[in-house]
Amino acid sequence: MTGAEPGHRPPGAHDDIAALIRTIPDHPKPGILFRDVTTLLLDPRGLAMVTARLAGLVPAGIDLIAGIEARGFIFGAALAHHLGKGLVLIRKDGKLPGATIGIDYALEYGTDRIEMHEDACVPGQTVLLVDDLIATGGTAQAAVRLLRQAGARVAGAAFVVDLPDLGGAEALRADGVPVTSLVGFPGH
Amino acid sequence: MTGAEPGHRPPGAHDDIAALIRTIPDHPKPGILFRDVTTLLLDPRGLAMVTARLAGLVPAGIDLIAGIEARGFIFGAALAHHLGKGLVLIRKDGKLPGATIGIDYALEYGTDRIEMHEDACVPGQTVLLVDDLIATGGTAQAAVRLLRQAGARVAGAAFVVDLPDLGGAEALRADGVPVTSLVGFPGH
Repeated sequence: MTGAEPGHRPPGAHDDIAALIRTIPDHPKPGILFRDVTTLLLDPRGLAMVTARLAGLVPAGIDLIAGIEARGFIFGAALAHHLGKGLVLIRKDGKLPGATIGIDYALEYGTDRIEMHEDACVPGQTVLLVDDLIATGGTAQAAVRLLRQAGARVAGAAFVVDLPDLGGAEALRADGVPVTSLVGFPGH
Repeated sequence: MTGAEPGHRPPGAHDDIAALIRTIPDHPKPGILFRDVTTLLLDPRGLAMVTARLAGLVPAGIDLIAGIEARGFIFGAALAHHLGKGLVLIRKDGKLPGATIGIDYALEYGTDRIEMHEDACVPGQTVLLVDDLIATGGTAQAAVRLLRQAGARVAGAAFVVDLPDLGGAEALRADGVPVTSLVGFPGH
């Protein structure tokens, strides 16, 4: 779990950011505790705290931030703005107007598809993937494959929330992607 | 059109930001020139320029930024981070985990629905609405009605791109909302 890796979380980061995240029981289905970052975003300090702390964990030499639709756009944009980097959009099927590359990936039931513009990365560019939360990691793993297909080097993946018991961060690391997160919620 | 209102656009803002916006002809259907901000976002200066200029146009006394899913999340988050304000999410139907209020609005064919958390605004709070582009303004007008239903005072609406011939900015102003934009593309 993320909590066992002190290098991945600055001292004190857990408590104040975690306190701004609302937990909604039984959403989207019974037994699931949904970690809702909208309450963090409403707080004028919330986005600033998250962005400053993510910025402190970013590997050196990043060219681009990649945000996953839709909440990843929020944290990705704030981080891209903070660091003065470009932002690549990883979107759901059919949402991008230009020529795209895409990848299908398995969900619990069925499949889903994400896409990016085929010219979004210059081959060899170094990208940091950003999303609000990592659970099983299916979307994040697909995003990494997609960025690599576009010629990017994925230097890391950063999340506000990790649900370590669902194994997504571990799976990403097994794919060779360093993972950082600010808050871990064991159990799910 | 926006270009006739010099107070709404800082000198020089049009050319450099406009040059970073890609135009995709015949998307999503023949005859439409789609203004694609993803190329602006890829440029490390793009989000910084837009955010600084939007920040310079924000009315005094704003409590919250409201971003419209999904591209409004990007510019809304960067502006909220820049100004140190909270961010309210205005999302498509069924995307928010907590108790919501929603509003249905007419599209060219059929209807659509946007929602926000019912507790996102404290009544009396002053909100700036942000999206990437205003065309006919249907979604923005619905967002204004929704924010007002939540008790917010909508102090303005800010867009990167205005398509003035489609009348959305004019319609918002008729609803009592001051409108600012950085780039106007006459025709559409």
